[in-house]
Amino acid sequence: MSRRIRITVAYDGTDFHGWQLQPGLPTIQGVLEEIVAGIEGSAVRVEGSGRTDAGVHALAQVAAFTIENPIPLDNLRRAMNRLLPASVRVLRVEEAPDAFHPRFDAVAKTYRYTIFREEICPPLEWRYVYHHPYPLDESSMIAAARLYEGEHDFAGFAAADHTDRKASEKTGDEPASKVRTIFSSVLERTGDKLIYTVRGNGFLKHMVRNIVGTLLETGRGNIDARRLPEKCGRTAPAKGLTMVSVEYEW
Amino acid sequence: MSRRIRITVAYDGTDFHGWQLQPGLPTIQGVLEEIVAGIEGSAVRVEGSGRTDAGVHALAQVAAFTIENPIPLDNLRRAMNRLLPASVRVLRVEEAPDAFHPRFDAVAKTYRYTIFREEICPPLEWRYVYHHPYPLDESSMIAAARLYEGEHDFAGFAAADHTDRKASEKTGDEPASKVRTIFSSVLERTGDKLIYTVRGNGFLKHMVRNIVGTLLETGRGNIDARRLPEKCGRTAPAKGLTMVSVEYEW
Repeated sequence: MSRRIRITVAYDGTDFHGWQLQPGLPTIQGVLEEIVAGIEGSAVRVEGSGRTDAGVHALAQVAAFTIENPIPLDNLRRAMNRLLPASVRVLRVEEAPDAFHPRFDAVAKTYRYTIFREEICPPLEWRYVYHHPYPLDESSMIAAARLYEGEHDFAGFAAADHTDRKASEKTGDEPASKVRTIFSSVLERTGDKLIYTVRGNGFLKHMVRNIVGTLLETGRGNIDARRLPEKCGRTAPAKGLTMVSVEYEW
Repeated sequence: MSRRIRITVAYDGTDFHGWQLQPGLPTIQGVLEEIVAGIEGSAVRVEGSGRTDAGVHALAQVAAFTIENPIPLDNLRRAMNRLLPASVRVLRVEEAPDAFHPRFDAVAKTYRYTIFREEICPPLEWRYVYHHPYPLDESSMIAAARLYEGEHDFAGFAAADHTDRKASEKTGDEPASKVRTIFSSVLERTGDKLIYTVRGNGFLKHMVRNIVGTLLETGRGNIDARRLPEKCGRTAPAKGLTMVSVEYEW
């Protein structure tokens, strides 16, 4: 009998070429598929809630796969963690409905982006922050961050090679909408860091990094906040970005 | 005119073969000497307050070197940080007396050892903790940790290849004392972690890792706490250890 398994995964993206499978390169999807295939005894597709770029981290990415193996959930979690590198951990393993799809069924995602503001970035933190010790008008940035809340067309914020798999796989070939709803978009100063937390119903490729890059341009005085949220600045570096959580209705 | 420079250095030891210079291998001393030599234009010896093992981290290791270059201290710090890998940062650069020696002049050092107790070790922490989720009698360990306080002969806690450079370099060939004074030795449970903090006037090679290994054996019930502090158990893994600070009289 086939079982749909939902897993929650944390990872340090530093040494991976992102989520998505790439032949010959270490990726999160690749290492998960290899290990689940070893347990199942045949090839298994592991689908994620979304692809994270090379260098992006996750506290709780959600993925799913289908297996026949009757292994108890606790044993499956332990077996996976024994076989995975220490930089990838399976936090939870659950049975899911057969139709569960981690990307199509997601109703909200939360990302966090961390900018380290002091001159010297601690060696134990450099993998997880963007080090930017130069002058910024932080209060303008903090105000500007709120402008992303609500429904907006983020066409200008998508990577050039963005393909909207969510829409096109579901509905065919029609041009995919780049309209997304942002439930909250908050930039805060916490100690040595500027921390941006954004929760929305979906994100285009590079969208969070482009929002942060635009906020940084605003802080440098290069973009007038009145032109936000349409105007897009640069893409902020991947390593400051962490996927915090994915929400589902069940 | 020659200048004695004292630096305070933080590092992530994961990718280094320890402090001490080893031909052909990345070490903290090696990378510092290479960079200071580049700035000075000739070979420079960088002396540390003590050698840390491969995989051991530092929040504030102290080192010193002598240069002729009149470069201002701020510029020297910035130049070093520009040239060093992100996993090594120079936190402070100061002028020191000509005779300053970071090892001989140290009056106290503090180390911290972190044991992660839950089943799943977060991917963003695994480099900095020893993951030990198995049963331990933590209250026995917490009580036993205090037994190291005071003056003790730690001969049983030195690595087999320990050479007491402090004594032998100063006084010649006489057998070096392995007596050390521990000012405080405290094990605490903090959230998911057991954190051991020890401050003393000096530490033999592997001594802190051997104390922690012995406390773990006590927690497993393999060593009777009444035989501490003389009895030595195993050597705990390097990556849980961090050098926290070095103290001097001036």
